[in-house]
Amino acid sequence: MSNSMWGGRFSEGPAAIMEEINASIDFDRKLYRQDIEGSKAHAAMLAAQGIIGADDAEKIREGLDTILREIEDGSFKFSRALEDIHLNIESRLKELIGDAAGRLHTARSRNDQVATDFRLYVRDVIDGVDAALHELQVVLADKAFAHAGQVMPGFTHLQSAQPVTFGHHLLAYVEMIARDRGRFQDARKRLNENPLGAAALAGTSFPIDRFATSAALGFDRPTANSLDSVSDRDFAIETLSAASLCAIHLSRFAEEIVIWSSAQFRFVRLSDKFTTGSSIMPQKRNPDAAELVRAKTGRIIGAETALKIVMKGLPLAYQKDMQEDKEQAFDAFESLELVIAATTGMVRDLEPEAANLKKAAGSGFSTATDLADWLVRVAGLPFRDAHHVTGRIVAIAAERGVELNRMPLADMQAVHGAITDAVYSVLTVDKSVKSRTSYGGTSPKNVRAQAKRWQRALAREAARRS
Amino acid sequence: MSNSMWGGRFSEGPAAIMEEINASIDFDRKLYRQDIEGSKAHAAMLAAQGIIGADDAEKIREGLDTILREIEDGSFKFSRALEDIHLNIESRLKELIGDAAGRLHTARSRNDQVATDFRLYVRDVIDGVDAALHELQVVLADKAFAHAGQVMPGFTHLQSAQPVTFGHHLLAYVEMIARDRGRFQDARKRLNENPLGAAALAGTSFPIDRFATSAALGFDRPTANSLDSVSDRDFAIETLSAASLCAIHLSRFAEEIVIWSSAQFRFVRLSDKFTTGSSIMPQKRNPDAAELVRAKTGRIIGAETALKIVMKGLPLAYQKDMQEDKEQAFDAFESLELVIAATTGMVRDLEPEAANLKKAAGSGFSTATDLADWLVRVAGLPFRDAHHVTGRIVAIAAERGVELNRMPLADMQAVHGAITDAVYSVLTVDKSVKSRTSYGGTSPKNVRAQAKRWQRALAREAARRS
Amino acid sequence: MSNSMWGGRFSEGPAAIMEEINASIDFDRKLYRQDIEGSKAHAAMLAAQGIIGADDAEKIREGLDTILREIEDGSFKFSRALEDIHLNIESRLKELIGDAAGRLHTARSRNDQVATDFRLYVRDVIDGVDAALHELQVVLADKAFAHAGQVMPGFTHLQSAQPVTFGHHLLAYVEMIARDRGRFQDARKRLNENPLGAAALAGTSFPIDRFATSAALGFDRPTANSLDSVSDRDFAIETLSAASLCAIHLSRFAEEIVIWSSAQFRFVRLSDKFTTGSSIMPQKRNPDAAELVRAKTGRIIGAETALKIVMKGLPLAYQKDMQEDKEQAFDAFESLELVIAATTGMVRDLEPEAANLKKAAGSGFSTATDLADWLVRVAGLPFRDAHHVTGRIVAIAAERGVELNRMPLADMQAVHGAITDAVYSVLTVDKSVKSRTSYGGTSPKNVRAQAKRWQRALAREAARRS
Amino acid sequence: MSNSMWGGRFSEGPAAIMEEINASIDFDRKLYRQDIEGSKAHAAMLAAQGIIGADDAEKIREGLDTILREIEDGSFKFSRALEDIHLNIESRLKELIGDAAGRLHTARSRNDQVATDFRLYVRDVIDGVDAALHELQVVLADKAFAHAGQVMPGFTHLQSAQPVTFGHHLLAYVEMIARDRGRFQDARKRLNENPLGAAALAGTSFPIDRFATSAALGFDRPTANSLDSVSDRDFAIETLSAASLCAIHLSRFAEEIVIWSSAQFRFVRLSDKFTTGSSIMPQKRNPDAAELVRAKTGRIIGAETALKIVMKGLPLAYQKDMQEDKEQAFDAFESLELVIAATTGMVRDLEPEAANLKKAAGSGFSTATDLADWLVRVAGLPFRDAHHVTGRIVAIAAERGVELNRMPLADMQAVHGAITDAVYSVLTVDKSVKSRTSYGGTSPKNVRAQAKRWQRALAREAARRS
Repeated sequence: MSNSMWGGRFSEGPAAIMEEINASIDFDRKLYRQDIEGSKAHAAMLAAQGIIGADDAEKIREGLDTILREIEDGSFKFSRALEDIHLNIESRLKELIGDAAGRLHTARSRNDQVATDFRLYVRDVIDGVDAALHELQVVLADKAFAHAGQVMPGFTHLQSAQPVTFGHHLLAYVEMIARDRGRFQDARKRLNENPLGAAALAGTSFPIDRFATSAALGFDRPTANSLDSVSDRDFAIETLSAASLCAIHLSRFAEEIVIWSSAQFRFVRLSDKFTTGSSIMPQKRNPDAAELVRAKTGRIIGAETALKIVMKGLPLAYQKDMQEDKEQAFDAFESLELVIAATTGMVRDLEPEAANLKKAAGSGFSTATDLADWLVRVAGLPFRDAHHVTGRIVAIAAERGVELNRMPLADMQAVHGAITDAVYSVLTVDKSVKSRTSYGGTSPKNVRAQAKRWQRALAREAARRS
Repeated sequence: MSNSMWGGRFSEGPAAIMEEINASIDFDRKLYRQDIEGSKAHAAMLAAQGIIGADDAEKIREGLDTILREIEDGSFKFSRALEDIHLNIESRLKELIGDAAGRLHTARSRNDQVATDFRLYVRDVIDGVDAALHELQVVLADKAFAHAGQVMPGFTHLQSAQPVTFGHHLLAYVEMIARDRGRFQDARKRLNENPLGAAALAGTSFPIDRFATSAALGFDRPTANSLDSVSDRDFAIETLSAASLCAIHLSRFAEEIVIWSSAQFRFVRLSDKFTTGSSIMPQKRNPDAAELVRAKTGRIIGAETALKIVMKGLPLAYQKDMQEDKEQAFDAFESLELVIAATTGMVRDLEPEAANLKKAAGSGFSTATDLADWLVRVAGLPFRDAHHVTGRIVAIAAERGVELNRMPLADMQAVHGAITDAVYSVLTVDKSVKSRTSYGGTSPKNVRAQAKRWQRALAREAARRS
Repeated sequence: MSNSMWGGRFSEGPAAIMEEINASIDFDRKLYRQDIEGSKAHAAMLAAQGIIGADDAEKIREGLDTILREIEDGSFKFSRALEDIHLNIESRLKELIGDAAGRLHTARSRNDQVATDFRLYVRDVIDGVDAALHELQVVLADKAFAHAGQVMPGFTHLQSAQPVTFGHHLLAYVEMIARDRGRFQDARKRLNENPLGAAALAGTSFPIDRFATSAALGFDRPTANSLDSVSDRDFAIETLSAASLCAIHLSRFAEEIVIWSSAQFRFVRLSDKFTTGSSIMPQKRNPDAAELVRAKTGRIIGAETALKIVMKGLPLAYQKDMQEDKEQAFDAFESLELVIAATTGMVRDLEPEAANLKKAAGSGFSTATDLADWLVRVAGLPFRDAHHVTGRIVAIAAERGVELNRMPLADMQAVHGAITDAVYSVLTVDKSVKSRTSYGGTSPKNVRAQAKRWQRALAREAARRS
Repeated sequence: MSNSMWGGRFSEGPAAIMEEINASIDFDRKLYRQDIEGSKAHAAMLAAQGIIGADDAEKIREGLDTILREIEDGSFKFSRALEDIHLNIESRLKELIGDAAGRLHTARSRNDQVATDFRLYVRDVIDGVDAALHELQVVLADKAFAHAGQVMPGFTHLQSAQPVTFGHHLLAYVEMIARDRGRFQDARKRLNENPLGAAALAGTSFPIDRFATSAALGFDRPTANSLDSVSDRDFAIETLSAASLCAIHLSRFAEEIVIWSSAQFRFVRLSDKFTTGSSIMPQKRNPDAAELVRAKTGRIIGAETALKIVMKGLPLAYQKDMQEDKEQAFDAFESLELVIAATTGMVRDLEPEAANLKKAAGSGFSTATDLADWLVRVAGLPFRDAHHVTGRIVAIAAERGVELNRMPLADMQAVHGAITDAVYSVLTVDKSVKSRTSYGGTSPKNVRAQAKRWQRALAREAARRS
């Protein structure tokens, strides 16, 4: 088999190689809205400052609006020869409005322009992610409220340790996502400074007003150092780090869903919408969506790592290396979008298998800690002694193959005389979870209250948005 | 050559392997202060809530203080058989105070205990990093102020693009570090919730007061979900991400220092303290410190990646995998400490080589943009036309081997008739930087003002701390 | 809580920082044997070439042997002031033999010396890993032979797809490890060239014989380019990549062991030696060893990534950055050693739970493909049609809650008339696995033969070694 | 600014999400040739074994050839609804030849089919990379031969250490690439086993001949374990690791080119073809190609890391996660292709700037080691003493600002009386490099011989290929 496919791309020589290196239009066209938005703000400011004429500014604005429509309705002709989105738009603008187009680039450079576009893009991504994560929290909190009292095993080492409730488990993810959202918000706050006006790297001698373009573009303020403005991509890396952590959280849930969906566990039932069958085994529910959530996490971390490697050890200011920032980021953000959407869909539709969960919750002497705590609380044993006594009782129970709540009192008393009939009040799963009333604990009452608290907070937030 | 060294560790069999797997005392002993602090807060709360007696709590407190002293004076005997710092301390406590020691662990578990210790540790790290970065900013701002007007080339692609000032270049790093500090602060704010009381994973039935231990340990509030509290390590990963970005910033400066120190550049002179010579070439100044800063960045990113890989796809709640969190984090934070200290030391001592910087700033037709901007501003050409005219003039200058400010007027006028004698007012390096007065631009006046602004802000901050 | 612990290390100033940067003795002391071996070969060659006197060479040899004994019996005093293992040894040599010590370093440099030591070390590691992986293969092949006919479910998506045998599953790992061993061997072959004699970077004017030192040190030949010899660390990275892949393979098995050990699966029983219980739930068998195997994989990948980041973009020849190579590699190799030892121990002791495996193997209509293949083979249906027919039958079986081998013939015939009584001959799990006789397939006969083939090959190899 | 662009993709709900998860046709269409090749071999074997009729096999072959033509001439209609390349081709085959198409999939499954396709693809990539690297070696060896005697500084810490020759420096990369090629070849050897016939995961009951398909597809043999065959992607990861290391090597050269191209170094002159100018500074030669080579390395390492993360901890056999393997690999391999092509082009065209190299080679007391070696060789000083004496002489020379070969004899004798006039024979750059005749050393004679050796070996290889 020949390798005609591979290696043929560059047989035409240097020109083909340099086009591949220089042409970013295949991916940076995604920045078209941000680029137009930025140019409009820039032109308006130039006119307000008297740097260009008001009529030129008006022509520029109209031309850019036309281009926006052309791109969105698909009639815009992108050209690889024009390398990037900025030159594609500028060239079309010249066709549309003539010489005035040549004044748009006054007092700016491609360096500050692309930095501005990319920040605006990442800001849009963050807003989109935030809304998607809000929705996921709503779905989780609703499901948690509905199953606040549904017992299930709390695992350590994938071994039953103590009973918890299904709602409690779901709320753990609501908390994680809250922190994820916080990270995205912090990244947004930090990136929301306007690099436009940094020009190539040194600022400009034109009397521009960077506060005006900041206001027009929703930035909090202009950046304070022109070299820094065009040299750094930490805002993209920080956002990718937030994306990685968010994906890691969801990958953990995805792993649980895969395990819970196995025939051996059957802890949950996924809907047909998020599983695939097989033409030959139509009863199957392969948790494809969950598996992809898990896998995409690797991709997002890979993109983050890649961009860090690119930036490490790079002297100021702009280096061509930095052109590698966008594809990695675009791909990672789109992967995250899919990961969140798939998780939200799965959670919305999944149903806990109550009987299986309850049975699993009660096995494995999962109330051993309750027995030990009873010995401390009621019988006054020091904690370490109580643990020792409990261990001996569990060993006997395991040998006999009975669960703790079926263990005869006499047998327990043989291990420690202070044990009374009252001990049975803590040995069932339901009593165990009910007793965990410490703040943050798994008692159904707690869980219901926490779910309700989240539902209210999320609803308030939704109300504020709309 | 035999490989007796490698592979011999586990020839004794399973016991040696499991000891290696279980024993974390070799690294988690670093958590001793946090562990004791946490236990003291826990014991005091248990007594206040009537869960243990006041006399037991007092004994525990005294015993823990004794242990703290023993560890700090080196007399404490750590035991690998006791696995971790928690059991080492608890075991010694039992020796010191007897049965009361057995009551300390009431209503908590190793799971919430280690989560608490590790959060407290990371919080301490953040506070230390913040102070170190503050100092680095002070040193940079002072140096920037002192050299606010020292011209140097502003590079793109390591080619001279436009002149900037040395102070301006240094202030770019002050801005980056400000964002790094912001990231650490945001991580601190997010991690500052108290997991103590989450117990093994489900909370507890004892009437504990998690708000009291939160207050005692400086946490803002207790965590809201017990499963989440013992399952997540996102606080460590987020802090490692902030560390990576900070190291990447400093690696860029380190790369510049290595290049600037070469015989070909000689842009700066490093002090003997941060360079090494050679016994045979004593005149040498190898920038070892800068090289190590650059290299340690790889190590910090590696640690961050490792911990992400560990956590990805891990079901709740505690898994043994999570024991891998601490060594990676400890190593990365210590590397960062060295990176910051070395950078601070280098900057404090380095001196710009004024003549070399000035000469380099003026070569390569670095005022071409100034000429173009003059054509726009004074002669009224559209920006794109001005660029074109400038390009032709530079081509002629390059051919003749003269810099722009030595180019005869007639030759320039031959390219475009609108050029007048006044153009020379923008063609020297000094005039170029002076003209970049836009907000964030490189004009010495701007740079001086920004440096002063930072000096004041940093001094205010220092005053608040002390 | 103050941060006295963090940030205090460098309060003494530059000297402390530079010591931290320069001193590698804390970790490179692991190279002591390789360093002494290399020096002995170098001295013998220098004498043979007449570059130093025979008596000096003899003194050097004796001195180095003394030092080797001192290090191995613990009496050697390592000094941080002497920076690294090379200077520690050279300094002690001078104490022991006087001026002759000063002749040892003729015609070499620290650059080629450390490159030689590190290659020898990595070569030792590879030999150790190879022996350890050989043992793991032996243990897996033996276990596979013993359970060649033990049916279990073959999973896709953690859902039962087709029955396989336990032995077949284990042999999959024998194959993976064979490839891992191949990678280590290829790395060994590639690194086994001698950098000694490259000197600082340019070679030397002394009439050295690099072929002689190559022979003495077991290298296949001297390296061909002195600059390359001291500049590259690809041998370490390649070995780390092999280590990563090997760890990934074992992490997959570890994940299976964790899942299989859950109460819901109970596919295998781990021995007490590789699990931990809990003082309160002594019946527990937490698969700690498997979890650590899974987690250490992250660490090894992290180290590999770190070293790649360090080397990326580094100009030739030696840079201080490269000092970061050893700690990362040492840690990763020691982690791999633990991972292999733990896996070997677990496999040796684990026992399949036959009844659970068999029951799981037969559920989920796992013989659906057998039915389809029967329809193709016996009834002559095109494959796609056979699949369709089978899908309809499985759907009916699922609805009725019966497995395929209990499905009445009439009901099957209602779906497709060509089905006869003979179909039942393929519908049980045992018949299914028995029928998979294609090369590499899961039939017990195949599995037994493959296990036997491996046992013989591994035994031959063991015989060759001893 | 609204975020209509982001987050809108999945507003249609679950169907859109699942299509995104399931549809791989957008990227796996790249496998079309391998898929068709594999199917043809499979059909021929099925007919030869009597599993399908010869006429059906013939129809299948013709149909597949038609499809190949359709895809290559662009007339094939790819359908996203048909998910992947395999189903797209099978569906079209059914249109073309009817029912016979339904027999093609007998005794195979998508699992072994995709494993086969992907291996064939990676094998093609390796062959393409190998040819490209061969060409790069040719170009480097030719350039090295042409400049075998051109002196330049050999750097450590980017400081001049000892003179070397430009040819010697280039040959260092020829050696690195030779090892890179070795890694790709080893990966090829290891992956070249045929998974076809492993079916879903358990093998098949049809009497297939896997040795026949192996021969037809150029595989060395069939894989030995069906579970392993469909579960592992180590061949892709190993090839990505080889790609990473190769890219790291080229990134080092790229870094050197960027530095060497700076106005301060001017060590080489790049051709216009691999640099960009600027409309305003047309004299500029920005080393864009070199910068992109450096940057793409991050991307390739990122892809490798991503795939490792995906595979880590994944139970056997197929999981949907593994669908993430291809996009990452495709992207990384295409990046590598560009990296090699760009480097080859740059090297072919670049010219060393002889005068600058020579001047730099002679500065910085770069012959200090030659002086020390002379003291050992001629004056009989122990090496360490010779170093000490040299250090003192260099210090005096540095103070006076003269190079060593201009240092008066009397001044040297004042430091050590054994120095004679003969010492000047080693103190010039040309004499220094000429004297480094040890194997692998930098003497022009050596370099010429090594370059010639490589030229011959590469030519022989080229002859064998054609």
